[in-house]
Amino acid sequence: MDRQVSAAILVIGNELLSGRTQDVNVQTLAKFLAPLGIDLSEARFVPDIQAEIVAALNALRTRYTYVFTTGGIGPTHDDITADAIAAAFGIGIDFHPEALALLAARYGETDFTDARRRMARIPNGGNLVKNPVSIAPGFQIENVFVLAGVPRIMKAMLDDIAPRLQRGRAKIVRSLTAQIRESDIAHGLEAIQKAHPDTDIGSYPFFNEQPSSPETGQSSVGTTLVVSGRNAGQVAAAASAIANLVRGMGVEPQDDGQTAAR
Amino acid sequence: MDRQVSAAILVIGNELLSGRTQDVNVQTLAKFLAPLGIDLSEARFVPDIQAEIVAALNALRTRYTYVFTTGGIGPTHDDITADAIAAAFGIGIDFHPEALALLAARYGETDFTDARRRMARIPNGGNLVKNPVSIAPGFQIENVFVLAGVPRIMKAMLDDIAPRLQRGRAKIVRSLTAQIRESDIAHGLEAIQKAHPDTDIGSYPFFNEQPSSPETGQSSVGTTLVVSGRNAGQVAAAASAIANLVRGMGVEPQDDGQTAAR
Repeated sequence: MDRQVSAAILVIGNELLSGRTQDVNVQTLAKFLAPLGIDLSEARFVPDIQAEIVAALNALRTRYTYVFTTGGIGPTHDDITADAIAAAFGIGIDFHPEALALLAARYGETDFTDARRRMARIPNGGNLVKNPVSIAPGFQIENVFVLAGVPRIMKAMLDDIAPRLQRGRAKIVRSLTAQIRESDIAHGLEAIQKAHPDTDIGSYPFFNEQPSSPETGQSSVGTTLVVSGRNAGQVAAAASAIANLVRGMGVEPQDDGQTAAR
Repeated sequence: MDRQVSAAILVIGNELLSGRTQDVNVQTLAKFLAPLGIDLSEARFVPDIQAEIVAALNALRTRYTYVFTTGGIGPTHDDITADAIAAAFGIGIDFHPEALALLAARYGETDFTDARRRMARIPNGGNLVKNPVSIAPGFQIENVFVLAGVPRIMKAMLDDIAPRLQRGRAKIVRSLTAQIRESDIAHGLEAIQKAHPDTDIGSYPFFNEQPSSPETGQSSVGTTLVVSGRNAGQVAAAASAIANLVRGMGVEPQDDGQTAAR
């Protein structure tokens, strides 16, 4: 249970790099993996170019426990992910009987065009990933999960993946927010980080961008301090030290609570 | 003018990979670069670990014309970007006189703490990037631009960078939206892509997620077809062929117009 389980996400598509589309799949995957104790350790965005997909996938799949890809599994000519995955693994690709059956049932004999059949092309040995939204499946090859790019479909596919994943020990995360500039507590914070080496302390300033008080909705300048670690006692001790540091500056921190999720 | 100018973005910070924060800087940078004719070709997200930042930066800076980093230049212990950049280039890092002067003027003698002085540490030979929001500067070393992570500050820093960049020939982009399933036009679209090889045709389906008609606000299923290229005539010809393809299916496409921006 204590083994570190790691993951990377490979976001595929010109539309993410051109600025046309705002990616949200990285965050969705991060939030999905955190409670499973799987650390999302890297994300890469590449365009719809086979050589780029292959190089990135091979770099990531040999380094992390799991790789998740998003995008490029639709019916059109610019959907090249399945072929790129097959090329990366050096394996063939063909129509997958179960995927064909799923799509045939959805579209019926007359509407099951070649373009739709194309979505049943799966690298040899791939296991399907269920798509409850629009049927056309994703797939798994070894430690690589190939998912849709449309956020709603990508998210729905995660349900079918969860039972297949080896789990780690989830990080415990404690978050405190204070109306204090981070540079005013930087020195004390560094000392606390040194005294609690098995925790990670992150400092995230905000500037009139989020209300520090949900009751009044008043915007302000402040800092959110996030402690994470795999041991609840260590996280609580570091958070307590941070709360005392902030109180020492005459400011009462707002306790955002503890999550095992992120 | 016709030389291809390329770029990558390196997004630095545990908070992006833990799911705590939704990145928006990739899209901001993409939209900034597109009208300058600079192709954003890759994005990578790495955690606050020096070895990861160094490895990613060295891979990217040797491959692309420019690299932009975001995050990790604040006053706290978890802000390690400046040191990581110096390590990646194998150069020293020290207090930068101009950065010190800027910060001293902002905070005054008594409030200019060690933590704030830390934000004036710049790798040797670095040129400052102006921060009109919170003063603490970014910097440029060779082809690498080091920017803040806070979206408002990151965006403001781009003003100071624009004049330093070599420009390419901007892509011309034409976008058409139709209430048609992409699998129904996939075959015809592929033929159009083959007939117009100097353009890139992207097909982006939507499912009850955006109104196809801004007038009625009615949601529906459909596809946005995006043609891009560096030659206006070629883009117009491909877009015209796509419009005719869609009309041939009995659907009038909505012309989303042409941009030189993305």
